[in-house]
Amino acid sequence: MEIDQSAIQEKARPLTRARGLLKALPGKAEAEVIGFAKSVRKLAQDDPRRIIHSLKVGLALTLVSSIYYLRPLYKSFGEAGIWAVLTVVVIFEFTVGGTLSKSLNRGFATLLAGALGLGAQHLASLSGEKGQPIVLGILVFLLAAASTFTRFFPRIKARYDYGVLIFILTFSLVSVSGYRVEELLVLASQRLSTILVGGAICIVVSICICPVWAGENLHNSVASNIENLASYLEGFGGEYFQSGEGSDSDRSFLEGYKKVLNSKPTEETMANLATWEPGHGRFGFRHPWKQYLKIGALSRQCAYQIETLNGYINSDNQAPLEFRCKIQESCTQISAECGKALKSLASAIKTMTFPSSANVHVENSKTAVKDLKISLKAVSLEHDQELLAILPDATVASILVEIVICVEKISESVHELSNLAHFKSVEPTVSPEKPQLLHRGAINPVLEGDGDHVIITIHETSTDSQENEHPKAPKVGQRVEL
Amino acid sequence: MEIDQSAIQEKARPLTRARGLLKALPGKAEAEVIGFAKSVRKLAQDDPRRIIHSLKVGLALTLVSSIYYLRPLYKSFGEAGIWAVLTVVVIFEFTVGGTLSKSLNRGFATLLAGALGLGAQHLASLSGEKGQPIVLGILVFLLAAASTFTRFFPRIKARYDYGVLIFILTFSLVSVSGYRVEELLVLASQRLSTILVGGAICIVVSICICPVWAGENLHNSVASNIENLASYLEGFGGEYFQSGEGSDSDRSFLEGYKKVLNSKPTEETMANLATWEPGHGRFGFRHPWKQYLKIGALSRQCAYQIETLNGYINSDNQAPLEFRCKIQESCTQISAECGKALKSLASAIKTMTFPSSANVHVENSKTAVKDLKISLKAVSLEHDQELLAILPDATVASILVEIVICVEKISESVHELSNLAHFKSVEPTVSPEKPQLLHRGAINPVLEGDGDHVIITIHETSTDSQENEHPKAPKVGQRVEL
Repeated sequence: MEIDQSAIQEKARPLTRARGLLKALPGKAEAEVIGFAKSVRKLAQDDPRRIIHSLKVGLALTLVSSIYYLRPLYKSFGEAGIWAVLTVVVIFEFTVGGTLSKSLNRGFATLLAGALGLGAQHLASLSGEKGQPIVLGILVFLLAAASTFTRFFPRIKARYDYGVLIFILTFSLVSVSGYRVEELLVLASQRLSTILVGGAICIVVSICICPVWAGENLHNSVASNIENLASYLEGFGGEYFQSGEGSDSDRSFLEGYKKVLNSKPTEETMANLATWEPGHGRFGFRHPWKQYLKIGALSRQCAYQIETLNGYINSDNQAPLEFRCKIQESCTQISAECGKALKSLASAIKTMTFPSSANVHVENSKTAVKDLKISLKAVSLEHDQELLAILPDATVASILVEIVICVEKISESVHELSNLAHFKSVEPTVSPEKPQLLHRGAINPVLEGDGDHVIITIHETSTDSQENEHPKAPKVGQRVEL
Repeated sequence: MEIDQSAIQEKARPLTRARGLLKALPGKAEAEVIGFAKSVRKLAQDDPRRIIHSLKVGLALTLVSSIYYLRPLYKSFGEAGIWAVLTVVVIFEFTVGGTLSKSLNRGFATLLAGALGLGAQHLASLSGEKGQPIVLGILVFLLAAASTFTRFFPRIKARYDYGVLIFILTFSLVSVSGYRVEELLVLASQRLSTILVGGAICIVVSICICPVWAGENLHNSVASNIENLASYLEGFGGEYFQSGEGSDSDRSFLEGYKKVLNSKPTEETMANLATWEPGHGRFGFRHPWKQYLKIGALSRQCAYQIETLNGYINSDNQAPLEFRCKIQESCTQISAECGKALKSLASAIKTMTFPSSANVHVENSKTAVKDLKISLKAVSLEHDQELLAILPDATVASILVEIVICVEKISESVHELSNLAHFKSVEPTVSPEKPQLLHRGAINPVLEGDGDHVIITIHETSTDSQENEHPKAPKVGQRVEL
């Protein structure tokens, strides 16, 4: 049908269509302008720092332009003042770390390449007037090719990519223009001083006016990623077991975890830029930024499991109610306690306090796992209650058990962070929730409809049972490479 | 213990340590040089195009430097030749798409900003000698701030980020230097012509000497990602059910899928650059690059499920053999057929032929799912065979069923691609594997140890049962947003 209609439209006379378009133009333009205004507003509302950043760039550029405008300054900088403008435009980044990284890269690369360029000049001049361009050409070729190749090294790519670019640029310019311009040293010192002025203006504006720290961004984004996972898990039990009932309610909390799935590149970039930043606010100079990457990797692992779990939330499975009743309580408990544990881990990161309140919830979730296992042991399938029918529910239970392990690992790595970064150890003013006494594993239960006593051997899937006590940070059992 | 030892080392006399370091220096330096040489070799071996690219940059830079070296050219370009060198260094990218995107961005942005800068000059000159710097300052501030803000729009960020940067740069330079230099138009035309020369050299070198096409990269990486998933699934059955036996064999095929998990940013960048490229080789000008992103998203979805699956491969679960025997055959079959389906989809993409041979394997895997369901229906748990014990195996089976759905979706989207991109429809010279007649679902089986006949109602989890016929491409049932 769709194809037919579009075929008809295709055949409509071009003239008629053009006339229609012309009539619709003012309306369309209006709609576009309104749409544009809306998207500008949304961008600004999502992160008001964007507006401030734009104004900061404008300010830095106006400041550096004054080098040209004002005569006294003009005399000392000369035409090279153009480099100051260029420097500001190119190195002013959103975060302080980005600006610092680029200015330091630019400064050192210019210095090094300038010196090497002078050396190349000297070397080339030894080979006579005819040989000079050939020698210079070969040198530029070799250095450019070698430097370009170093940009493929992942470490150099991550930290010094811009520096290598500027190195190639400056070396070529110095060795080439030196052949023409005699006052090379004067030019070089001019260029360096203008770059210094441009860089200094950028750094001052970037740090002094509403600074955006890459480290703080990383810190907050890792915490909010954990919060997204928490929201999902807290709501999962209700959503899965009462499927259909709350379908008209707000289900946006089920979407948040998807942001976590692809968080890797952003986190890596921010962790890299954070290492360029000086100590600021709550973050010391040697803040353990790498630990955030570890927490981020574990969060992603958890998000992958949630993604699989999420596949079962919408499937219209009709598990026998009897079985569902048996596991519903402990599954909901597991999911909710994992959510609470993650919530308090996230808030511990945000407030930079010791994540002691999370331990209770981790313990609770592990107790709930034990309860679940007891319930599962008690299941004996009748013929009218086949394994196939209960498979989705059983799978959900199984994945939830895996998620508990993952949440425990996240908890361990947040504990590690809190030790490395010397988080405040607060005495909680509000008493944390007491672990609910749900643990039924100590007694051998008499199973209904089954005369035999069952000996329960619960094999621990996690490494160590974790104490509820406070500053004892557990080891991370297993590292996850992503 | 570790802390104690390090404390002792800490206390060792600095002099002794320094002496030790000095002695170890030549050995260390040698080791570092060898290590460096090895990593250079590895980088080059992994992708020999990296070496070629480095040489290309060297060549382009040497070519553009000749503008300076050779006197006749020098006269026509003047000092502005410096911009040609700068242009080459800055816009020469690894892929043709990257180079084209940057040069077009640079060219158009320079043109536009130059014109606007002249306008700003004129406007400022109307307000007298005293007002001129103030008006210019305000204009630079406003334009820089507004342009910087547009860089936050995701669409502009993806395609025109560099253009906006150059726009700000050129506008500031033109409006500011115009205040000093009277021959602004001459300068502007000089700068434009040098940028054209620099850009032209880059484009020619980039396209004519061993070009690296972003589109081809995307094409190959999507195919190889699917292949990675396929290798995992083909090997999974053997690895999971014979765990322990083949532990000393090469298990690298179990790692490949991890590359897929974080493939999103790379794929998006390449798809974006590919749209800048002209038609090349097997790819037309309007090749459906967006469809690759869809296939990529589905591949990642499959990779997430495999990640969850992978958690069960190393757990030392001891499911009762009886149950394991019941599901082993069909699970291995599902996994292997999914793997084969993905392999043939990948090879269809690589050879750009119609993916007809994949249909057989998709059908086989669906048949195997039906078999699995029949086996599961036949399970009735005894007391000594609790649900808890078989839970890992059951979960693996359940996830495999989900993977089949995902593989079918991948197959659908590859079919869609093959239609959009007009893949060759080949008559296979080697006859494809016939679907094995595994389907037992048509007959009501008499279950062992159970006198009753069971009526089997298999509820389809996938949308449509797919025909084995050839060019009929099925619809994609559900889009996945990642």
